[in-house]
Amino acid sequence: MDTDTVLREKLAASTRILAMQGLIGVFGHVSAYDPGSKRVFLSPGMGADRSTTKPDDIFVLEPSGKILKAGEGEVPIEWPIHTTLHAARSNALAVAHLHSPYATLFSIVDRPFRPVTLQGALFAEGIPLYREANLVKTPEQGRQLAEAIGNQRAVLMRGHGAVVAGLDLEEVLFCALVLEDDACKTAQAAALGNVGTISLEECRAFDAETGLQRRSHRVWKYLAGLEARWDRQMSSGKIPLFP
Amino acid sequence: MDTDTVLREKLAASTRILAMQGLIGVFGHVSAYDPGSKRVFLSPGMGADRSTTKPDDIFVLEPSGKILKAGEGEVPIEWPIHTTLHAARSNALAVAHLHSPYATLFSIVDRPFRPVTLQGALFAEGIPLYREANLVKTPEQGRQLAEAIGNQRAVLMRGHGAVVAGLDLEEVLFCALVLEDDACKTAQAAALGNVGTISLEECRAFDAETGLQRRSHRVWKYLAGLEARWDRQMSSGKIPLFP
Amino acid sequence: MDTDTVLREKLAASTRILAMQGLIGVFGHVSAYDPGSKRVFLSPGMGADRSTTKPDDIFVLEPSGKILKAGEGEVPIEWPIHTTLHAARSNALAVAHLHSPYATLFSIVDRPFRPVTLQGALFAEGIPLYREANLVKTPEQGRQLAEAIGNQRAVLMRGHGAVVAGLDLEEVLFCALVLEDDACKTAQAAALGNVGTISLEECRAFDAETGLQRRSHRVWKYLAGLEARWDRQMSSGKIPLFP
Amino acid sequence: MDTDTVLREKLAASTRILAMQGLIGVFGHVSAYDPGSKRVFLSPGMGADRSTTKPDDIFVLEPSGKILKAGEGEVPIEWPIHTTLHAARSNALAVAHLHSPYATLFSIVDRPFRPVTLQGALFAEGIPLYREANLVKTPEQGRQLAEAIGNQRAVLMRGHGAVVAGLDLEEVLFCALVLEDDACKTAQAAALGNVGTISLEECRAFDAETGLQRRSHRVWKYLAGLEARWDRQMSSGKIPLFP
Repeated sequence: MDTDTVLREKLAASTRILAMQGLIGVFGHVSAYDPGSKRVFLSPGMGADRSTTKPDDIFVLEPSGKILKAGEGEVPIEWPIHTTLHAARSNALAVAHLHSPYATLFSIVDRPFRPVTLQGALFAEGIPLYREANLVKTPEQGRQLAEAIGNQRAVLMRGHGAVVAGLDLEEVLFCALVLEDDACKTAQAAALGNVGTISLEECRAFDAETGLQRRSHRVWKYLAGLEARWDRQMSSGKIPLFP
Repeated sequence: MDTDTVLREKLAASTRILAMQGLIGVFGHVSAYDPGSKRVFLSPGMGADRSTTKPDDIFVLEPSGKILKAGEGEVPIEWPIHTTLHAARSNALAVAHLHSPYATLFSIVDRPFRPVTLQGALFAEGIPLYREANLVKTPEQGRQLAEAIGNQRAVLMRGHGAVVAGLDLEEVLFCALVLEDDACKTAQAAALGNVGTISLEECRAFDAETGLQRRSHRVWKYLAGLEARWDRQMSSGKIPLFP
Repeated sequence: MDTDTVLREKLAASTRILAMQGLIGVFGHVSAYDPGSKRVFLSPGMGADRSTTKPDDIFVLEPSGKILKAGEGEVPIEWPIHTTLHAARSNALAVAHLHSPYATLFSIVDRPFRPVTLQGALFAEGIPLYREANLVKTPEQGRQLAEAIGNQRAVLMRGHGAVVAGLDLEEVLFCALVLEDDACKTAQAAALGNVGTISLEECRAFDAETGLQRRSHRVWKYLAGLEARWDRQMSSGKIPLFP
Repeated sequence: MDTDTVLREKLAASTRILAMQGLIGVFGHVSAYDPGSKRVFLSPGMGADRSTTKPDDIFVLEPSGKILKAGEGEVPIEWPIHTTLHAARSNALAVAHLHSPYATLFSIVDRPFRPVTLQGALFAEGIPLYREANLVKTPEQGRQLAEAIGNQRAVLMRGHGAVVAGLDLEEVLFCALVLEDDACKTAQAAALGNVGTISLEECRAFDAETGLQRRSHRVWKYLAGLEARWDRQMSSGKIPLFP
């Protein structure tokens, strides 16, 4: 298959899986970049039913934001999140903008996110916060967001949500699920006492990077299998990542 | 379609969507006002199955509460909530009385509701509290409630629930969902540390009003699509608004 | 229909509805007393599938515990809860022993249950605690439990669950749902600040007793309607009472 | 049936039931040991769909880890958890490695797990913690884990999950469910006040051991019945154990 077909199919699947997992709904979108053709592939914006997204629903944009091919409904109003990050980092070939329920709590509360599980070691250095109380609707705002994320895997957006970037859509899906899981565990553990974290040294020793590609592709395949038989009822497909 | 048909269809859809979202159950009701004919259209009272409400199930009342046309089962015992608010405010053409699980927490606890997300900017000035520990069963109680809400979008009712008012049913649905989402996030974040809020200045700068009609109508259409294929199992359709 | 048929049908329905609502599972049972024949009708014990209980599955006991007619599987090992309460109080014609997830928290924590909603006024004087760390397997233990509950609607059992008693199965169902809802709201609100309660005076003024029969029978009919189309998947039928 | 067939069928059923209950997902595995043939039977590793595991999917290993018969997909990378525990203890004929959402909180927070319900008396002496921040991928690490668990029913693994061991798969399933239930109740009760526990003396007096086999086999049969009609949607089968 050509790149265009592959990226459309994977973006559609990624959107449906995130919908099944409760990480994407009326809002939220995912993109992938093709460095060869310098095109950005982007899932539909507000109002499209994410649980039934098809390859034909995907938008294709120039890095400037110019729409080369329209998809389903409207392009996400926050498209500059995607174009700017794809342009700013060669290791951000896939980008998800999500409003993950538990991760978003860390964009609200005065407590920095820290990994609390071994898988969370992917976020060994924590997750920076984009403090502006607005949507990212212009390339200039996109550049501020790119500055905030730096070379990290993710950035939190105050009172809003998160952006996760990675080498491919499998990695972004896996990292988004790990982030949500660690955020959920921290919120639930906080009432019990002091929450222990996995230290930077322990994170490095655990080396979550090695084998990440294999692990994330395996998890993708697992979730794609569940998604294929999902009955499209919004609360019936959700499953915590671990387990 | 004539106003009567339109309002009945929208009220039925609104009731079913709120049931799908877990914001309405054995209790709770929604109304719309037709200023032309001075009639109040009101969804059924306690006992009617809200997940299958049809246009024919809607009651039609005079502002005095006199029933012009009976609907399914019994009229809500708290009908004065609706007649009084429709009469008191020209911008309260749609009114929902809900017992939203998380929003209701703020009617119990000694902590005022404050917006914690950008969408929450709709409630920039907070939400007043109706302190009386009773149901609103008389026009006089309705007037006290109208006084409590003033010109705000919503009012909390102590140990009971909330009322949300707006220009149309789409706006009321959207605002009720945003209120529940912000309340839920605050409750879940509270164990983590100090919960940051979106300040009044930031709320104004974000300007949640502009585009509210477009946004709320889009969300309505999205949820109506999910509702159309909902299997009517009470926990299977629920989805957080963001995502 | 004769009393036998009526009580069997209602007990089976009551068991299925409680299963749908997540208040009864591998454990938990419900009973009704026929003062005319002095017989206790009791739903099956551990291991029976509560989501499909049929009238024929119901046990019939003498107040002494002697089984007059066997039902499905085994009689609940804690049958003395039912026989003793039916004998001790003429207003305990229906009794449920549940392990309701949120209500049970108040049997664990050093904080007495207090009503936080208007409907919670049914428990105006709080709920006593049976402190013994054991199952109620003998008539003597049953009498201690009866002493603990006194003339209240419910008693909590330490590290274990609750018993709810009432005039009929509709009342017991409604009270069990209100208890769970108030317990849930208190647990969720506790992180937010000081939890306000409905005072004894306010509870009396609200007068939850008046109309309780009408209200509880209406709620029963509502839930029986949902149960009739429940797909028997254990998490798909649950709905908070308010909404 | 021969031992091989029995253990394969029970391991497959155990995996599906744990998936239904939300205690096993993309990760997690269960094993049983046949002392006669000195063979370890082990459910599949990362990526296999646990909600459809069949007897043929089970791996057979020597205690050394050598694969005698391959199953579905890949053998769990943490197979030494199973081989080492089976070798170390004659009362660890069944072993589950889970990432139970609530139990795992106690591997994160500085608060030891203590039983809070009568059923929790199974863990009267608490649950030790394996402190190493790594996966158990070698026999040496397996031996450290075996040392940490000692002769207890379970061990928590820091920032990771838990291991539960028992005389048969029914006991391990029941203990894993009780552990998750007590952990969940503690987390939810913690916001309410001081959480009371069942003291060591009370646990001993309650004597959760007696009748454990009968109780756990009954619960297995109950859950196997629910699993047989489960629709394989990941959130639709879950039910709290009590109820």
